[in-house]
Amino acid sequence: MSFSLTILGSSSALPTSKRFPTAQVVNLLEQFFLIDCGEGTQIQIRSSKIKLGKLNHIFISHLHGDHYFGIFGLISTLGLLGRTSDLYIYSFPELKQMINFQFKYYDNKLPFRIIYHYLDSKNHQVIYENEKLQIESFPLKHRIPTCGFVFREKQKLSNIKKEMVDKYQISIREIVKIKEGADYILSDGTIIKNEDITISPPKPHSYAFCSDTIYREAIIPYIKDVDLLYHEATFGKDQQNRAKKTFHSTASQAAQIALLANVKQLIIGHFSVRYKDINILLKEAKVIFENTLAAEDGKTYQIK
Amino acid sequence: MSFSLTILGSSSALPTSKRFPTAQVVNLLEQFFLIDCGEGTQIQIRSSKIKLGKLNHIFISHLHGDHYFGIFGLISTLGLLGRTSDLYIYSFPELKQMINFQFKYYDNKLPFRIIYHYLDSKNHQVIYENEKLQIESFPLKHRIPTCGFVFREKQKLSNIKKEMVDKYQISIREIVKIKEGADYILSDGTIIKNEDITISPPKPHSYAFCSDTIYREAIIPYIKDVDLLYHEATFGKDQQNRAKKTFHSTASQAAQIALLANVKQLIIGHFSVRYKDINILLKEAKVIFENTLAAEDGKTYQIK
Repeated sequence: MSFSLTILGSSSALPTSKRFPTAQVVNLLEQFFLIDCGEGTQIQIRSSKIKLGKLNHIFISHLHGDHYFGIFGLISTLGLLGRTSDLYIYSFPELKQMINFQFKYYDNKLPFRIIYHYLDSKNHQVIYENEKLQIESFPLKHRIPTCGFVFREKQKLSNIKKEMVDKYQISIREIVKIKEGADYILSDGTIIKNEDITISPPKPHSYAFCSDTIYREAIIPYIKDVDLLYHEATFGKDQQNRAKKTFHSTASQAAQIALLANVKQLIIGHFSVRYKDINILLKEAKVIFENTLAAEDGKTYQIK
Repeated sequence: MSFSLTILGSSSALPTSKRFPTAQVVNLLEQFFLIDCGEGTQIQIRSSKIKLGKLNHIFISHLHGDHYFGIFGLISTLGLLGRTSDLYIYSFPELKQMINFQFKYYDNKLPFRIIYHYLDSKNHQVIYENEKLQIESFPLKHRIPTCGFVFREKQKLSNIKKEMVDKYQISIREIVKIKEGADYILSDGTIIKNEDITISPPKPHSYAFCSDTIYREAIIPYIKDVDLLYHEATFGKDQQNRAKKTFHSTASQAAQIALLANVKQLIIGHFSVRYKDINILLKEAKVIFENTLAAEDGKTYQIK
């Protein structure tokens, strides 16, 4: 449960009674990162195990209403709950204007600061980093400026074998060096190779989010080899022309991107309401990329 | 089923997984009137039998987010569904600014016009009228300008007794006059009294909405004798001071207003999340006004 994704909304622009508009939460060791915030996101959060107090970073991919109309209610609720710590929002400058405009009419001042980081819809960027995680944005191609996001766990240090510490009486200072990759040199000059006294750390995991976008192979370098990819699949093959015209993707195209990017698992979402049975889209994708799931609101997926 | 109220949201500012923020729909003969539009209203509408195409009038009582944050998504959805007929919004001027500001960034122009009617938070007004219904606004007292609304069916004309038409060979022209209240005069000058040849029409029904407001007896003349009253009951007696400070009402106060206004039935709502068991509030109200119900999201109440 250390690195997971919870889908809060998997509908496209028109929500249904079963699917809310786009919103999802990445949970890394109980730090919560919200991606997009469609209408009703705070209501979906209330039904989940996500702790609002541990949500400090919100990433809005683009300024179509179904990806941000829930942010006003969420901010208002955070204020009513007495939040005082800074909230970081990663999006485009117009969102700041909209939030300021909205809360200008509020009779209660928000008790916390909002710190904005503006996305670059033309270039790949590292937009957030802490000791455990790096988050990147990269350009998608939609009708308005839009970014995808990649969450990459950082490579952990090696673990030193406990019996070796005892055997060679290694000091704490030396342990730090060995964990960083150094060999250990005995007092007689004998070199003990790093791999003989350490256990390799687990491989770091990664998650990429791509919504909304036309089929675009240019995004592949940014999402190459991720463990989990969420890619929009608004339409099926039957609406291929409509997908192109509206700068969206089909399920087959999402699967083709997953295949070319060599990801481990694909989740498709952002479904058009015209598909009452999502299995149609899922089947289309699985023909090209077998390890595909259809997003379900409220469900949590491990990133591994 | 000719005149009814459907509750879409009955929570106060913080929504829960069971209660959405304020929104409700008055249905008069399949014409739908939306009162307030908290976040998620369009999602609640999707789960109900309300026909979006027959929703032409939206009344927003005041500009606290839990009463209007859902209007952006609703307007966007009406546009995506291809609405072309005018939409009428009754609220305060800032809402127009907010809607314009929001849709300035939209890449698709809305395919319908929005016509705004500004509320007067100081005076009683008739704000809408058709051949079957009159809608009035009146001042509530909250932290910002706020209005309540009353929906009054119009008095229907009398029905003429069919056997009398046959007996006296009454012409269509005379029938119209009789339905409007005239007596019928025979050719020999004999007067047949109106009440002897007509059946009285059913009494017109009425519904009043009061949220959010401090306890205020000055509203009683506006809601006197209505068949159904919705009055906010954010708090219980335990939070009487808090109610006063925040310009809200307690359940007892809502019941007291219902009693003094001589209404037939009371629905309380706008519950604070602190009350896990709404029966506490319901019991408080029933002590003062027995015919009280606690609002439930998704439930429809006949106005009779």
